Amino acid sequence: MKKIILTISACFFLVFHQESAAQLMREPEIDDQNRATFTVNAPNAKEVKVINQSDEMAMGAAEYSLTRGENGIWTVTTKPCRPGLHYYKLSIDGFECADPQSQMYFGWARWSSCLEVPDKNISFYLPKNNPTGDVIIHWYHSKVTGNTRKCLIYTPPGYRHEMNKRYPVLYLQHGSGESELGWTMQGKVNFIMDNLIAEGKAVPMIIVMDNGYAPAPDAEDKNRPAGNSNKFEELVLQDLIPEIDANYRTLSARESRAIAGLSMGAGQAQRIGFGNLDVFASIGAFSGGSRNFDPNTSYSGVFKDAKKFNETVKLYWFGCGTLDRAYEGARSLHNELSKHGIQHVWHEMHGSHEWQVWRHHIHEFAQQLFK
Amino acid sequence: MKKIILTISACFFLVFHQESAAQLMREPEIDDQNRATFTVNAPNAKEVKVINQSDEMAMGAAEYSLTRGENGIWTVTTKPCRPGLHYYKLSIDGFECADPQSQMYFGWARWSSCLEVPDKNISFYLPKNNPTGDVIIHWYHSKVTGNTRKCLIYTPPGYRHEMNKRYPVLYLQHGSGESELGWTMQGKVNFIMDNLIAEGKAVPMIIVMDNGYAPAPDAEDKNRPAGNSNKFEELVLQDLIPEIDANYRTLSARESRAIAGLSMGAGQAQRIGFGNLDVFASIGAFSGGSRNFDPNTSYSGVFKDAKKFNETVKLYWFGCGTLDRAYEGARSLHNELSKHGIQHVWHEMHGSHEWQVWRHHIHEFAQQLFK
Repeated sequence: MKKIILTISACFFLVFHQESAAQLMREPEIDDQNRATFTVNAPNAKEVKVINQSDEMAMGAAEYSLTRGENGIWTVTTKPCRPGLHYYKLSIDGFECADPQSQMYFGWARWSSCLEVPDKNISFYLPKNNPTGDVIIHWYHSKVTGNTRKCLIYTPPGYRHEMNKRYPVLYLQHGSGESELGWTMQGKVNFIMDNLIAEGKAVPMIIVMDNGYAPAPDAEDKNRPAGNSNKFEELVLQDLIPEIDANYRTLSARESRAIAGLSMGAGQAQRIGFGNLDVFASIGAFSGGSRNFDPNTSYSGVFKDAKKFNETVKLYWFGCGTLDRAYEGARSLHNELSKHGIQHVWHEMHGSHEWQVWRHHIHEFAQQLFK
Repeated sequence: MKKIILTISACFFLVFHQESAAQLMREPEIDDQNRATFTVNAPNAKEVKVINQSDEMAMGAAEYSLTRGENGIWTVTTKPCRPGLHYYKLSIDGFECADPQSQMYFGWARWSSCLEVPDKNISFYLPKNNPTGDVIIHWYHSKVTGNTRKCLIYTPPGYRHEMNKRYPVLYLQHGSGESELGWTMQGKVNFIMDNLIAEGKAVPMIIVMDNGYAPAPDAEDKNRPAGNSNKFEELVLQDLIPEIDANYRTLSARESRAIAGLSMGAGQAQRIGFGNLDVFASIGAFSGGSRNFDPNTSYSGVFKDAKKFNETVKLYWFGCGTLDRAYEGARSLHNELSKHGIQHVWHEMHGSHEWQVWRHHIHEFAQQLFK
């Protein structure tokens, strides 16, 4: 019996490097008082900091200085953090980067770290033993941007099997510096919808999440086109909606089509939604998009005629966290719209400009949508 | 006309931080001689390095020291790099991390940077103006691991419309320290398949990409279970295949089911494939999985009876790059199998233990599969 000893290693790691288990990803640990412990391996650094990129209360302080231990491992335990998902970054002697130990999320126009602090009182955004919907990465060719793009599409449980059923569609947008991945990775919208649908609290719907940056072919700022070089509205109307209606079992009447978004996406949702009420009947705005509001002229004067507005718009939902700098303004909008007799749903909750608020927003909004 | 000035900013950035455009993600620039220029903002560092995590020839050197410019911006231009996708990391005075400017890929058991060096001579893995397949993120409940897991599923162009058509299925695995995202993010398998199918060179097929780590519910090493605590084979047989066959329009006879993988995944593909030839008829092994090969005993002695092997296995395909440390051994396996009359396809090409080789491997393998 001839035995051939082959050296093909099953392990990419061991072939080229002797990285040890100590270097595996270990996300920050969170204790039962929601205090997070960060660990950074920076043997020659003079100053290592964790910089909280949300409001101070989110992580108990704007930043934390870590303490050097033996072997150059720096650590710090934070004050109690607020439940939710908080962007943060490390500073190593002024060099700023994501935490090599953390899960990554696209935000702040780059891959960023987030601290996920559990909320013991709620579980609506966690996976449960319910039937699961899919999230489809859908590539398509855009005439507006002149390239191949992708969007993410949530299809509800049952979509794959109930071949004669058609579904309403929500177009759902992320915030500035984020991407089409935000609503699933940060927002956990698929689990939120799976759970709501299982409980009979939401109509099964398709959710389309595209990237809010749609650079014109000649745009100079390809990564984050601004102003006229961002053709997102044209993309939605000319490319995206036809693509979705042609490829998914949608209900394509305006009553079955909604648009919503957070922060920058709230502005887009309202601009595109109110500007095209022959296409959309329901609009959601989470923490944004109402700057310089004027009831007579804003959004092409859609609020001017309350009776017409109330007949045309099936659902206008907007919300804001009470810690958001925009809160007072958003509340004023709510009061002003109420005074003018414009039907809308206003939602406020404890929280700032952060994903935990937007998880609540979509959770509430979805329960009122398409009913 | 009462004008309400609301302060809800459409821009998450501007509300909380004054990050400027200078901090937007800018991937390393690559010139027409495939030299990459890296830029790192590390004002107080003493030593900044780019560490090539592949073989030296991939990026021209094992590491590069950057030079400090004004304002603390460090730069370096590499020697010409080999076309393909190369893992790398930064070292800032010994602190190692991904490059904040780069796209992120899950590899090395964490989110890592890669340098994508274009190959002017080939375009088979780039998006073209062909019909596009989908990549579905499919969540499911696993009895084997006792939790909700996800896998990625490529469905070919036409899958959504040709409702009476059924498709063969390839189970395709990543390498050690990578994840279910590897074959699409690093490998671009969806574009490779779209292009092959458009050219009539590959049979339209479903490709299932799961995570090769399936920790037993009581495993201590949850992130990268090893040995008996990794229940991946049980997962594939007991959970995954039934889930896929119940939810997608598959051809479920063994002749229409294949398993393949790279490096660690090559070992898994051969162990699971040859160990369950009533389930799989075709097997692909890319750059790995043949260590300690013995024609009489390896993989439960499947190579012992050449006649039976040739009747049972529709396609056994394996390949390796000539710069891979495993190359000589893999070539010996090819020679030995040839000597024993065992039908197989052997593929070698210039390249090391790297994604550019695996892009070629899947491109070749897929053209021979299910025919």
